[in-house]
Amino acid sequence: MRSSIGRMRWIVRLTQFLGVIVLLLFIVAALFSIRFAFRALTYEQIDNEDHLEKKRAYLEEIARGATGSSSGFSSGPSPGSSSDRPNILLIVFDDLGHGDLGAYGSKSIATPNIDRLAKEGLRLENYYAPSPVCTSSRAAMLTGRYAPRAGLNIVAFPDGHPLDMLMKASGTDVRLPAEEILVSEVLEAAGYRTGMVGKWHLGDQAPSLPTHRGFGSYFGALYSNDMAPFALYRGEEIAHEAPFDQSRLNEVYTQAALEFLDQESDAPFFLYYAHNFPHIPLFTPEKDRGRSRGGLYGDVVEGLDDSVGAILERLEEQGKLDETLVFLTSDNGPWYEGDPGRVRGRKNQTWEGGMRVPFIAYWRGRIEAGRRNETPVVGVDILPTLLSILDLPAPGDRILDGLDLSNLLEGETETLDRFVYYFGVDARLDAIRDDRFKFHRRRGVRAQGIGDYLDFKAPWGPWLFDLEIDPTESYDTTRRHPADAERLARVFDEKTTEMENNLRGWR
Amino acid sequence: MRSSIGRMRWIVRLTQFLGVIVLLLFIVAALFSIRFAFRALTYEQIDNEDHLEKKRAYLEEIARGATGSSSGFSSGPSPGSSSDRPNILLIVFDDLGHGDLGAYGSKSIATPNIDRLAKEGLRLENYYAPSPVCTSSRAAMLTGRYAPRAGLNIVAFPDGHPLDMLMKASGTDVRLPAEEILVSEVLEAAGYRTGMVGKWHLGDQAPSLPTHRGFGSYFGALYSNDMAPFALYRGEEIAHEAPFDQSRLNEVYTQAALEFLDQESDAPFFLYYAHNFPHIPLFTPEKDRGRSRGGLYGDVVEGLDDSVGAILERLEEQGKLDETLVFLTSDNGPWYEGDPGRVRGRKNQTWEGGMRVPFIAYWRGRIEAGRRNETPVVGVDILPTLLSILDLPAPGDRILDGLDLSNLLEGETETLDRFVYYFGVDARLDAIRDDRFKFHRRRGVRAQGIGDYLDFKAPWGPWLFDLEIDPTESYDTTRRHPADAERLARVFDEKTTEMENNLRGWR
Repeated sequence: MRSSIGRMRWIVRLTQFLGVIVLLLFIVAALFSIRFAFRALTYEQIDNEDHLEKKRAYLEEIARGATGSSSGFSSGPSPGSSSDRPNILLIVFDDLGHGDLGAYGSKSIATPNIDRLAKEGLRLENYYAPSPVCTSSRAAMLTGRYAPRAGLNIVAFPDGHPLDMLMKASGTDVRLPAEEILVSEVLEAAGYRTGMVGKWHLGDQAPSLPTHRGFGSYFGALYSNDMAPFALYRGEEIAHEAPFDQSRLNEVYTQAALEFLDQESDAPFFLYYAHNFPHIPLFTPEKDRGRSRGGLYGDVVEGLDDSVGAILERLEEQGKLDETLVFLTSDNGPWYEGDPGRVRGRKNQTWEGGMRVPFIAYWRGRIEAGRRNETPVVGVDILPTLLSILDLPAPGDRILDGLDLSNLLEGETETLDRFVYYFGVDARLDAIRDDRFKFHRRRGVRAQGIGDYLDFKAPWGPWLFDLEIDPTESYDTTRRHPADAERLARVFDEKTTEMENNLRGWR
Repeated sequence: MRSSIGRMRWIVRLTQFLGVIVLLLFIVAALFSIRFAFRALTYEQIDNEDHLEKKRAYLEEIARGATGSSSGFSSGPSPGSSSDRPNILLIVFDDLGHGDLGAYGSKSIATPNIDRLAKEGLRLENYYAPSPVCTSSRAAMLTGRYAPRAGLNIVAFPDGHPLDMLMKASGTDVRLPAEEILVSEVLEAAGYRTGMVGKWHLGDQAPSLPTHRGFGSYFGALYSNDMAPFALYRGEEIAHEAPFDQSRLNEVYTQAALEFLDQESDAPFFLYYAHNFPHIPLFTPEKDRGRSRGGLYGDVVEGLDDSVGAILERLEEQGKLDETLVFLTSDNGPWYEGDPGRVRGRKNQTWEGGMRVPFIAYWRGRIEAGRRNETPVVGVDILPTLLSILDLPAPGDRILDGLDLSNLLEGETETLDRFVYYFGVDARLDAIRDDRFKFHRRRGVRAQGIGDYLDFKAPWGPWLFDLEIDPTESYDTTRRHPADAERLARVFDEKTTEMENNLRGWR
């Protein structure tokens, strides 16, 4: 009897002990939750005042008429002529794949207007979005700096969204830092009439809204079209309450672009037309249903082509098309639908399918018609190229990652001596390529997701792909090309070290 | 003071309560573990005695010289001539991709011997392995029945491996059921001298070892080459202890195949040459390093081509090549390395890249040289085709899923009226296709793994792909082709119901 009571006591003590541990865990979890919520709610993004000051000085210098030391378009008219200050139309689609356009061989989707741009301009075969995901790709393209450098390598979510809170709680920046210099800010300072229509996705907080960042006018959505609330803004005011009927999205975007073009001005214009489509969810007006051979996705892309057609037609009517430089591209590879072409992978991945997308450059009389070029080009090249064309200086306080493409566009050179850097969705460097080889070091090489995380025998690289004969990244040729593997590994390590030592590239 | 003591008591009671729950959870977990271990350790797979008996009767009938009612090769010599009992060489590589052979356009890998088979025979463009994973694909190919029908839709692991234990504990069959009829058993009964060299992977338990299943001789590995212990067997005895040095694997397999061919016999032979390569891990002899432009993977595949060359040469020396029907294929799409061609996905997936693989058929004088055909063909067709060619009856007690390809091989027809069924690694039907459309209903349509499980907005199908113009399964055309979508959905549902009502297809 006493022994039985003793055993009972022992069980009581054990249960008390375990209970105390559970209670303590609850308390710790509660404290963490409070701390987390506090940090998220009190989060304030700090800009770099020093480089913000230098940015202001740089833009003032441009406004005062400073010129660059670059050669600009060597065979063009003398600096200052109107052709050296072309109108600039930058068209960016969302999640459009390399194989989704007629000009790139689509059998499912007809895009005669875009094809015309390609036929009368330059089509790049190896253009890379600077990131495999929306926000990062846009941040990099508009600043000429890879996304980790530009301080925004995330997917931005609406203020208050759980993932937004999570990022804030962990101290991650959720809007493009104020000290970053955007192509729109440069062009505005240079006297351009600037406007944006479409998806921003670089943060919904001041001072990082479109109208704070060099765009004289703005009409569009602050996020992806799968994020709620999906309202449309004009400037900083809501023009269409959420949820906006997306079957009308292409219509109102096209209308807003035409309205921008119709505004009278002596200044050349810069229009950044960043469409939300063909990012999911997809919608078309009733009349467009079933028009393509590529399903709803194809119908939507054919609608986008109509929109491009309407814009080109308006420019032609206004007699401005000859003086307009057009770039047309996508922010990353296709996601669930959309054709990446004969490559491996899709959006979010540093396989080719995540970042190799269409790029068409059109400038009548300056870019030779019907050209096709295979040299690797990256979205970060756009800003340096425009600086060169406009004979503007580059900022002195920071690294620009992009190259000046003006000689390539004009046909004076067919290649660039460069490496493409593939930064993944987690901002780490996954891979690099030169004209022929791609060196893939990190987990981006996995085949298909969770199974590979669990499979410890899975091969993790590094891999060396010979893209010239192996477009699908199927064969690691490290052993056949040891010198190239070593050379690229060295460049990879140098870039990693450079980014570790001076992530933001301040000088 | 009393209130403080009351609060203390309350805390003591709460901790006791929580402690009791934790203790109960521990006890339940312990009981489950014991039950799990008990079930795994006492597991015994039960065969179907009724159909085992019917199988015996069927094979005896064949041994007694029963003929089929099929038309056989209509324009060939009369039944009974030697040409109607050709030698049969079935070559199956492991994880070889559609784009990995010269005959299929590889720029990285030279395969002159295999290319010769294609040049002098028939190359199929739309051949499908019957499953995107090893064990299931082999079970289906050898029985002419899709893997769930054949009772083995798993990846077989060595006896005692944790995953083997898990399958046993959950009551899953881990070896090919004894009542299944293999092509080797049929050919052995029909008087063929049968042999197998290479990877079995249909279970390492009696009565499902190669020598129990119609193979007069066997040399090879019971599992994949990434599974330990990797020993090589001759018959049921270990010939080379684990771990076997895999840089010699191709050499000893080739040697074993030649030894089989060298055995004197009046009977025609059936050799099932099921190589472990290019499944990872990959090894080559020192001399082969760097020979290909496709890295180690390419070097290994070029070694496989040598092996095919040695076998063809030996047959030619023996004057037997003219009387030998050769099929050469792969068990599923490529995994981490290897080129799936211009399609979506890889091994383990029901995207095209998981199942569309090379298939070459060679039979001098009977199959026209240099033909190329695009009609969908499936691995389950091999057994029915051989029954037809040899004028043997089909078993009456079960459904065979495959079709008779003999007219297609002989060029009398260029198409088959059929559906391809894509059963996934979990044995459920993911998709079906006809000549033009692929209807994809299930989660096999996901883009890239875990992210999609967490993204509840991800589109989950059903999707209708127009493979004629959309080889990368990039556009859901359901809305454009509603009648076809409905038709295929109906066939999909009928097949699902048929499998639910009579999974094993017993008659």
